[in-house]
Amino acid sequence: MSTAIHGIIGYTITPFSANGENLDLPALGHSIDRLIESGAHAIAPLGSTGEGAYLSDHEWDQVAEFSLAHIAGRVPTVVSVSDLTTASAIRRARLAERLGADAVMVLPTAYWKLSEAEVLQHYRAIGDSIGVPIMLYNNPATSGTDMSVELILRIVKTVENVTMVKESTGDIQRMHKLQVLGEGQVPFYNGCNPLALEAFVAGATGWCTAAANLIPALNLALYQAVQANDLERAKALFYQQLPLLDFILKGGLPATIKAGLALTGLPVGEPRRPVFGLNETGRMQLQALLDQLI
Amino acid sequence: MSTAIHGIIGYTITPFSANGENLDLPALGHSIDRLIESGAHAIAPLGSTGEGAYLSDHEWDQVAEFSLAHIAGRVPTVVSVSDLTTASAIRRARLAERLGADAVMVLPTAYWKLSEAEVLQHYRAIGDSIGVPIMLYNNPATSGTDMSVELILRIVKTVENVTMVKESTGDIQRMHKLQVLGEGQVPFYNGCNPLALEAFVAGATGWCTAAANLIPALNLALYQAVQANDLERAKALFYQQLPLLDFILKGGLPATIKAGLALTGLPVGEPRRPVFGLNETGRMQLQALLDQLI
Amino acid sequence: MSTAIHGIIGYTITPFSANGENLDLPALGHSIDRLIESGAHAIAPLGSTGEGAYLSDHEWDQVAEFSLAHIAGRVPTVVSVSDLTTASAIRRARLAERLGADAVMVLPTAYWKLSEAEVLQHYRAIGDSIGVPIMLYNNPATSGTDMSVELILRIVKTVENVTMVKESTGDIQRMHKLQVLGEGQVPFYNGCNPLALEAFVAGATGWCTAAANLIPALNLALYQAVQANDLERAKALFYQQLPLLDFILKGGLPATIKAGLALTGLPVGEPRRPVFGLNETGRMQLQALLDQLI
Amino acid sequence: MSTAIHGIIGYTITPFSANGENLDLPALGHSIDRLIESGAHAIAPLGSTGEGAYLSDHEWDQVAEFSLAHIAGRVPTVVSVSDLTTASAIRRARLAERLGADAVMVLPTAYWKLSEAEVLQHYRAIGDSIGVPIMLYNNPATSGTDMSVELILRIVKTVENVTMVKESTGDIQRMHKLQVLGEGQVPFYNGCNPLALEAFVAGATGWCTAAANLIPALNLALYQAVQANDLERAKALFYQQLPLLDFILKGGLPATIKAGLALTGLPVGEPRRPVFGLNETGRMQLQALLDQLI
Repeated sequence: MSTAIHGIIGYTITPFSANGENLDLPALGHSIDRLIESGAHAIAPLGSTGEGAYLSDHEWDQVAEFSLAHIAGRVPTVVSVSDLTTASAIRRARLAERLGADAVMVLPTAYWKLSEAEVLQHYRAIGDSIGVPIMLYNNPATSGTDMSVELILRIVKTVENVTMVKESTGDIQRMHKLQVLGEGQVPFYNGCNPLALEAFVAGATGWCTAAANLIPALNLALYQAVQANDLERAKALFYQQLPLLDFILKGGLPATIKAGLALTGLPVGEPRRPVFGLNETGRMQLQALLDQLI
Repeated sequence: MSTAIHGIIGYTITPFSANGENLDLPALGHSIDRLIESGAHAIAPLGSTGEGAYLSDHEWDQVAEFSLAHIAGRVPTVVSVSDLTTASAIRRARLAERLGADAVMVLPTAYWKLSEAEVLQHYRAIGDSIGVPIMLYNNPATSGTDMSVELILRIVKTVENVTMVKESTGDIQRMHKLQVLGEGQVPFYNGCNPLALEAFVAGATGWCTAAANLIPALNLALYQAVQANDLERAKALFYQQLPLLDFILKGGLPATIKAGLALTGLPVGEPRRPVFGLNETGRMQLQALLDQLI
Repeated sequence: MSTAIHGIIGYTITPFSANGENLDLPALGHSIDRLIESGAHAIAPLGSTGEGAYLSDHEWDQVAEFSLAHIAGRVPTVVSVSDLTTASAIRRARLAERLGADAVMVLPTAYWKLSEAEVLQHYRAIGDSIGVPIMLYNNPATSGTDMSVELILRIVKTVENVTMVKESTGDIQRMHKLQVLGEGQVPFYNGCNPLALEAFVAGATGWCTAAANLIPALNLALYQAVQANDLERAKALFYQQLPLLDFILKGGLPATIKAGLALTGLPVGEPRRPVFGLNETGRMQLQALLDQLI
Repeated sequence: MSTAIHGIIGYTITPFSANGENLDLPALGHSIDRLIESGAHAIAPLGSTGEGAYLSDHEWDQVAEFSLAHIAGRVPTVVSVSDLTTASAIRRARLAERLGADAVMVLPTAYWKLSEAEVLQHYRAIGDSIGVPIMLYNNPATSGTDMSVELILRIVKTVENVTMVKESTGDIQRMHKLQVLGEGQVPFYNGCNPLALEAFVAGATGWCTAAANLIPALNLALYQAVQANDLERAKALFYQQLPLLDFILKGGLPATIKAGLALTGLPVGEPRRPVFGLNETGRMQLQALLDQLI
């Protein structure tokens, strides 16, 4: 099923209790239901927006287990299993597979900068440990590792189950290069919200976005307009939602999406410290943006 | 007429004699005719591709005079008048206007980094000296000056005859910002060849390109597909010409366009030293690219 | 005692068993003894070189406990307690204090980029939780957070027990600024090995270095030459050890220091994956460098 | 004589009349006399501070002729002959040699980015055209060309009369590399004022500085303290003058040095537009800095 992942891939947040200490799994269930009911084509738990990096192993396991059980195959799932050590990423990948994930996503997070050989070996070791497809994820801003298109394609060629690429550098020319050097055979996904239109135009198979928590109808309509070859409509829809896409990028996804969920009736707590929640000014700006769109 | 500049704006090269010392104006005339006959919507002499920065004042004047006389109003013209001092840029702008240019282009080249106030004053002084419109040109890679979208719009608001913006940073989000903050009222033009498709999709009014010397039909077809709201066709046309667009960007426009003109029957000499002409390997690659396209 | 930390602050590695899975605490004890016996003025466990970021919480606690017990007050200690969440950094800081650390070091590691307010609050929350001094650590290459000198001094002024600053950007002008804006009252320490000489010349109080595991005599001699106001000798000593300092920086500290310890008779395993150990070519280069120096 | 260039190499400004249109050669003569009388070891006309890039060919020739005649061999001279085309740089270099320059300085300024082969050929062509030594000048911030240490040393090895290197990237590690890879045989000079102390400590032969127009005694004293192996004194002298060095770097050398000359009794006009002169606030800050130093 996972090779058919396409369209709008919605990212879940991870709700916490008011003091930030405990998980709020019922709220997570509500947010998942909202994504599915709004038409998201797939769901990605525990990604950057899901604060996967800020969870203890025990919490991570709980969120993975709950998310997959709650989604229950209603849409395909891509679980982010990234961690700093290869061993920990493998443990998470195996657990995600066992729990029924259709695919896993791997971002090569680094403390010590990684060589190309180290990155390749990281993917190979994870790939060899599981049977489900891997979505390779390139996002140097959060991971500290920038994979060139050439390296990405080398990994795709070398590790059999790396079959999808998520690109979040914000440089549209990377997608051109994936399309050209990959000879149109390597499905790539856009992870940079303000490039939503250009990425689809460049040939992206899907848009990985947390915006689907707030404005799913607009996200879907943009995708459909591109599918319908209606550039004018796609452009209009893009510019309509761009202010919100810019806002959530600049404000930080966990802070802004959590604030937006609260503003739309689903309180999910704040991000874990040191990351701040959205302040009062920000919430008012977000409310104004949402008022125009939904 | 100049506010109607749109579509494919073709850049001329400046032909030199074999030893690089003298101008070859007859060859310049041929290259201009080729551009016009192939359907270019406008012509821009003395730009980056035209090696305007490498000419003596006397040569610059000769090329301006010859170009405008030879074009003779067949298409609109935008003459690049950039120079390091404000006084010299004004002199060139006045000459271009006197010679009949429909508009002038100004890139704020810098040796000593310029403050925003200095850049604004540079445009104001030039604007006050002429009656034709100015196309503001942002290209930090060649000029050493990066103008933020906010600064650009401040200049547009302050200097009455700055009415067009050419953006060449390669960052498509700058065009989004021009579109959004300019409220769709500031026509912008794409100067980064590999962003040709995305720029039009983002709302660019035209594409400033030296590629029109070599593959004008493909450049025009891309523009027309976008005008016809045919995204699939635009995308196919874009990917068809992208390898050539990448090649001329990486190889340097004067070197590659001059080599391409020679390969297609119009010898125009080499770029002026220290810039090298395209070497034999490069010429073979270019020939292969052209063979596939024309 | 900690405010008197000065001179050569040696960083420990964290030895693993051959398969990388288990800690090798006896080897850690030997490496600590070597540092102390060679004259290091202070010891910093669990830093970047110590792979603190790659340890589980349980392992981290074991290494902290063992290190402090084994050092047993023979020299001052600065324990790196950095972690992605404020809560986890506080837990580690409290444990380090309870175990007898003279000071703790805090690097604001980030997944989501941190605002200045978030960084300040991170330090404040940790500072409020412990009674020992904090060495603020700026190293954007590993942490993803670059603190300006102005922000650093604001933190120093705001959080009472942030009393020392370790600077590792590699930009000597940051140290000038710390000296000037801090009015000579904020002790700063150099964390960029190839700047060892310049940092002391600029006024650094100490040099935080893993090189002391391999060439402690040269590290100490450089410090002493500066103390003796003998610039010529300091310069000669610096250029003598610079090739090794460059080598360990480029090769990655855990990989090169662990290889160097093995080459000098103390096997400590390899870094944890995805970080590779030094390959055979690298080990031969390192051996050659060491042969010239010790 | 030129291979013996060392110590403080003072840069001249180019005085203009009040409206900025004409040269003020008598004022240039006064500024040269001040530099020589204050003890500068050498003088460099027409450099970045001298606004060489903003002069017409005719003005450039006048300034070169006047400067060399006025210096009249009292100290060695290094004339900056940089220009965008190789042919123009050669013309200037030959003129400088004919006029008696001891050496010429060459910065590879670029509009179109230069390849390493193009940079090398630029230096070779100039070197082949003259008989005096060349000081290679690396300053990517103004030239748009960053030469790696490896490229610099390749040029030194290939072009016989490139015998000196001026480094202005602001990265002290470049100087370490010049010292190490050049095996101490390639004299290098510091062109980044705030690195004055570190550069000498790293082994720089001289300090190319426009500050000698304003605080020559302090510049010389710093050099002498280093020569006397008195690090403590060198450090104190460095931190004493650092605020002024930072000020002139941030404010732009032509603007700040011209303002400083006016404040100390020698009016020399303003920089040529688009570069602004120092504003009133800046002049007051500069006066305050000078009051503390002279």
